[in-house]
Parts: sequence; C-alpha cells; structure tokens
Amino acid sequence: MAKKRIAIDMDGVMADLNQHYIDWYYERTGEKVEKERLMGLPETTGFPQEGIVHHFLHTPGFFRTAPVMPGSQEVIRRLMENYEVFIVSAAVEFPQSLSEKIEWLAEHFPFISWKNIVFCGLKTIVRADYMIDDYDKNLRYFDGERLLFTAPHNINYQDYNRYDTWDDVAKFFGVQEAVTVTG
Amino acid sequence: MAKKRIAIDMDGVMADLNQHYIDWYYERTGEKVEKERLMGLPETTGFPQEGIVHHFLHTPGFFRTAPVMPGSQEVIRRLMENYEVFIVSAAVEFPQSLSEKIEWLAEHFPFISWKNIVFCGLKTIVRADYMIDDYDKNLRYFDGERLLFTAPHNINYQDYNRYDTWDDVAKFFGVQEAVTVTG
Repeated sequence: MAKKRIAIDMDGVMADLNQHYIDWYYERTGEKVEKERLMGLPETTGFPQEGIVHHFLHTPGFFRTAPVMPGSQEVIRRLMENYEVFIVSAAVEFPQSLSEKIEWLAEHFPFISWKNIVFCGLKTIVRADYMIDDYDKNLRYFDGERLLFTAPHNINYQDYNRYDTWDDVAKFFGVQEAVTVTG
Repeated sequence: MAKKRIAIDMDGVMADLNQHYIDWYYERTGEKVEKERLMGLPETTGFPQEGIVHHFLHTPGFFRTAPVMPGSQEVIRRLMENYEVFIVSAAVEFPQSLSEKIEWLAEHFPFISWKNIVFCGLKTIVRADYMIDDYDKNLRYFDGERLLFTAPHNINYQDYNRYDTWDDVAKFFGVQEAVTVTG
C-alpha cells in the first residue's frame, strides 16, 4: 500500500519564526519582548516599535538564520519511515527567501530530498492526506486531515485540532517523541 | 461552481527550451543544429558536442533568457478567464533557477499572480483537474486529465493525447487561438 502523504509547513512549524522575531528585535533595539505579549495578535505585530519586525522578513539572511523548532528534526525523520513527507512553504511571495530556505533545509534537514520540497503561493494546489500548518488560510481549503500547529498568532483559532509541540505531533502519528523536547 | 484548475509546466511548455538550447549552442560553437536531429532523444542530448547543453542548465541567466513558447501568453491569458491556472515547475532541483524563473514570469506573464506559482520536486503533490506537461514522469502520477505538450524528447510517447502547439491547447479548452500562431 502506498504511504500516506503529510504536507508540512516551514515557517512557524519547522522554523521557530516567533523566537527569531524576538531575538532579532532584541539584537536591534536592546529590548526583550516576552512571547506572551504576542498572543492572539497578527504575526510580526505586537512589538513596541510597529513595522520593524515585518521589515525583518525582507532582510537578507532572515530566513537562513531562523532557529529550528524544537523536536521537528527528530519527529520528521521518524515520520518519514512510515509516511511520504513533503515540505510545503508559501514562499513565492518572498522570492529572495527561496534560496535561503533551500540552504536552511539542507543544513537542518539534510535527510529531506529536493524532490519533496514545494514552494508555492496558495496551498490549495496541495494534494496530501495530512497537513500540518499554523495558518487557517492554508488549512481551510485542504481536504485531508488538518493539524494546527500552535503559534502566538493562532491561539484563538477554534476550528482545528491543535498541536503545541512536535511531541504532540509524534503522539498523533504514533511515532516516538523527540528526546530533546521530552528530556 | 468553482473554476476547474489547470496545472501548466514551464520548461518546454511555456518556455521554448529546445529553441534556447539550439540558439545557445550556435552562439557558443558556431554550429547550427536542426531540431529534427534531436527528435526522440533525451533532453539536452543529440548535439555534436555531448554534455555542453546540459552544462547550459547550470549557467546563470540560462532560464532568465529563455524564449517564450509561441502562443502561450495569449492562450494562458484566455484560459484564466474560465479556469484557475497554476504554473507548476519542477525547479527545486536547480535552486539557482528559482529567482530567474520568477523574473521570467514577471516579464512575460505579468498577469499571473505569485499566488498561482508552484516550484516543486515531484509533481505528485499537485491537485488539479488538468495538467499540461512535456514529461511522462510528471503526467504519469496525475489523476486528472493529462495533456502532453509535444517536445523533441517526447515524440515517441504513445500514452497521452498530444498537443503540438498552444493553438491545439486552445482548441481543447474551447478558447480563442493565438493570433501569433495562426497568422
């Protein structure tokens, strides 16, 4: 039987962009922003200086230097044993990010083939059995099983089963949890 | 009713790569190669100096300067009135081509939104009603209606309905043909 297919988002799911926003903000302004302050607000907003974090998205190197979401490497590697995993990033809106994202994946997820990487605009084009994403706009039109990965901007979403960590995702799919998260 | 979706390949379908190979070969070797010589051979092979055309694929500017397939602009614009059109290019294998392809599309197909552009590895991930492509490896796993766009490398394929020009595609979908091709 063919393996079932999982489509996994990058930003906010494999890459911890919120931590990256907070770190960049601290480096550039000297001000530490608590994650709690961002809860329920649109992504990149909620920082004392409005607009500066959205500007980070267009800065060369921003996506290349994003931290890896804890547990994502171990859990995705295990998922690949039993599932066909595709990385699906709505990255075409930010063309300069494409080569950075390929390099980032090659560094942190070298076990993922270029054959299984997708950069798109709308994710309505994606055919898969499961989608793991942090945005309603991506999950809404997906006709398979939808897993909402928790991010500060989505804590008020009510319409999806929610997964706070990669360990939660591992439990859903019945694979071993990540040592780095449970330890 | 939702519009039906067409997934359209770039290389060999929207971009006339074979003409581009022949032109580059002539510029670099002074030798004119007839298209007939390439019929039925794997793409980039069949030229007197083997290997040189495959090398072009990795040369900066190669994809950026590809000629537009005659009629593709007019016909795709008309298809967009009645269909949801996605451009789907298996380009992640050539990371340096991604930004060139975005620029090429912006120049020659400015009416196509970034939302409808997909760069992938395997096209098995694509969900659409129709796929227009010049490769069996892409069409084979597609579960919608498959349109083979004729290219020198595929003239011996027997398993698909074949379309030699964008006018043939226009006729299939019942839209007006391209003036540039029929004139």
